[in-house]
Amino acid sequence: MSQMEYKKYPYDYLHKFSFEVMKKLGISEEDAHIPGEALLKADLMGDPSHGIIRLKRYTWRLDNNLINRKPKMSVTIETPSFISYDADNGLGQVAGYKAMNLCMDKAMKSGIAIAHVRRTNHIGKCGYYSMLALKRDMIGISMMNASCLVAPTFGIEPLIGTNPMALAAPAGKEPPFCLDMATSVRAYGRVDIRNREGREIPLGWGLDHEGKVTIHPKDILGTAGYAKSGGQRGTMLPLGGFGDETAGYKGYGLALVVDILTGVLAGGLWGGNLALGFDEKVAGLTHLVGAINIEAFRPLNEFKKDMDAMMRKLKDSKKARGYNYTYKEIEDGYQITMKRRKEPYERIYVPGERGLELEKEQMKNGVRLGDYVIKELEAINKQYNMGYEF
Amino acid sequence: MSQMEYKKYPYDYLHKFSFEVMKKLGISEEDAHIPGEALLKADLMGDPSHGIIRLKRYTWRLDNNLINRKPKMSVTIETPSFISYDADNGLGQVAGYKAMNLCMDKAMKSGIAIAHVRRTNHIGKCGYYSMLALKRDMIGISMMNASCLVAPTFGIEPLIGTNPMALAAPAGKEPPFCLDMATSVRAYGRVDIRNREGREIPLGWGLDHEGKVTIHPKDILGTAGYAKSGGQRGTMLPLGGFGDETAGYKGYGLALVVDILTGVLAGGLWGGNLALGFDEKVAGLTHLVGAINIEAFRPLNEFKKDMDAMMRKLKDSKKARGYNYTYKEIEDGYQITMKRRKEPYERIYVPGERGLELEKEQMKNGVRLGDYVIKELEAINKQYNMGYEF
Repeated sequence: MSQMEYKKYPYDYLHKFSFEVMKKLGISEEDAHIPGEALLKADLMGDPSHGIIRLKRYTWRLDNNLINRKPKMSVTIETPSFISYDADNGLGQVAGYKAMNLCMDKAMKSGIAIAHVRRTNHIGKCGYYSMLALKRDMIGISMMNASCLVAPTFGIEPLIGTNPMALAAPAGKEPPFCLDMATSVRAYGRVDIRNREGREIPLGWGLDHEGKVTIHPKDILGTAGYAKSGGQRGTMLPLGGFGDETAGYKGYGLALVVDILTGVLAGGLWGGNLALGFDEKVAGLTHLVGAINIEAFRPLNEFKKDMDAMMRKLKDSKKARGYNYTYKEIEDGYQITMKRRKEPYERIYVPGERGLELEKEQMKNGVRLGDYVIKELEAINKQYNMGYEF
Repeated sequence: MSQMEYKKYPYDYLHKFSFEVMKKLGISEEDAHIPGEALLKADLMGDPSHGIIRLKRYTWRLDNNLINRKPKMSVTIETPSFISYDADNGLGQVAGYKAMNLCMDKAMKSGIAIAHVRRTNHIGKCGYYSMLALKRDMIGISMMNASCLVAPTFGIEPLIGTNPMALAAPAGKEPPFCLDMATSVRAYGRVDIRNREGREIPLGWGLDHEGKVTIHPKDILGTAGYAKSGGQRGTMLPLGGFGDETAGYKGYGLALVVDILTGVLAGGLWGGNLALGFDEKVAGLTHLVGAINIEAFRPLNEFKKDMDAMMRKLKDSKKARGYNYTYKEIEDGYQITMKRRKEPYERIYVPGERGLELEKEQMKNGVRLGDYVIKELEAINKQYNMGYEF
């Protein structure tokens, strides 16, 4: 398919659908609202690759007992600033939501607290959890190790996850700061979407299975496609790109920081040990969340005033003129032409700003879903006789 | 100068020189050993831009009362997991060293602790402080906001620091993991060194003062040179490079995370408010250090075993063939040719590994200093009648 079509749905309709599907699959009334909320946050903020499209994979995993429907989640270690939370292989969103709330309670007393969510599953949008802290005017942190898709610097084997990290901090008049990033150049799902759209990717996102840089999504996704393992697949590159010319070793290092602070520190799985999301194995992921109680450091209104001033200063500064890139394949490489555009960029953003504006717009006018997402929802709708219309 | 010359000096000789200079300038016997140790760590690990060359700037700032010779450093806020440490405008190395030790003491009880070092000065190599944790088999964290040299994504004004972040974690048989990175593509000092060496820089490190990408160090450093403010200077680019093609907004976001967790959270200066290192102003920097007591999470030997296995797996994996880059200036842009090399890279490294190997070698055979570093040491030697020979 070379072009995608889109339809819009009211947020509440999609959330109710997810809630009822979860209940039908045996998730408790109390917990069933969380996965939909977390997944739709990604669609709302313009990242459909981590959005409601994932619901299908969860229902499949629940149906195959790869995710525990009736987990007994519990705190297994506790110090003044740390909680180890056992998800008992339950839904990643539910465990992450609960652990983040425990973490914030603890930070009220100790100033800063972190929680490991052990034996958990796919969490969706990493930034959903850090952004929970904004409701309580705290700084929220979230990071997660993920199955291997990224090559180490100077390597070509996918041995590291796209291991995302997120931090959210409240502001006053300005929108909150919401960084939410894979430590690879881009999230894997973005390559998948470019493929579905029939578009090339910029040079530097990934390598083919021989380790050659490429502009073709298919070279990275491999012959087996997105939803199945096996076949010859390429790798994503760490933030900073190939080799050390533009410091790809920094993104590589950041990805390992996530693995160390999650899987290795918690005694869970890490890097090369992790199953792929579409493997028929228990995921065994480790999610780290953290909360900082700003009031323990300085008065909240002063913090917010500085956040506003910092963001205003950035946004009001002089805009760059962009560059257009064209790529030409040559023997054993590429020729890249960078031509400066005539017009400057219209705006300078702060992290999360574009997503938050899109969220506001979509809450009002409906959530925009691509046809490939709608197909997945329709399949769930039929399979479980939900009686919804898409 | 288009070529640099080098000479080697025993570590102890250089350290003793720094120690005695500090004492002569009024730093206490107890504290005087710290700046040299921290600075030489950078030279030892192959980062001379943060090394003993900086001593000259410290002596100048001490002489001009921009750094307090007799600071009364103290803890001003304390929670179970947090310390606010007032450096009283003393030497950044001394305050960072002491705060990190307090932090580790606290982490012994609470599992994890962080400290803000407020009203501090230049700290040198950010990773020196995180690596202090290795002596106690803990995970160490260090981050620091710095004066503005980096443009936000889509912008061209230097409004953010190169804001480094570092994390060190112990391993067993393998060397410890020591990530220590500026959140810009490269540290500013690296551009300076390329300039002294008469070499070009890869496209993507920085912009000239009009916001054009450049391969000429001078376009970034500006007409006024490295050691003086004023004149027209360019900017460094955040990790990920220009625009959003290869996710420069992630490095931009990480730099802001450092500013938020240091200056903004501590009520210190941030981003555009910070003085440049060579300005005649009190620096007012904020340094964040943190310690994680691994034993509070899981048995140390198990942690180390996993660290070893993770690193071995990465290092033993298949090597990539590198690319050679050539740059051609064209109207309004560049043409870049990427040609794949015939030979694969010899090794895959884990963060810090190259530096640690170099440290070992230089502790044995002497610390290699460039002629421009030696000149600075010689100037100090003369100025304070130290009677050393360089």
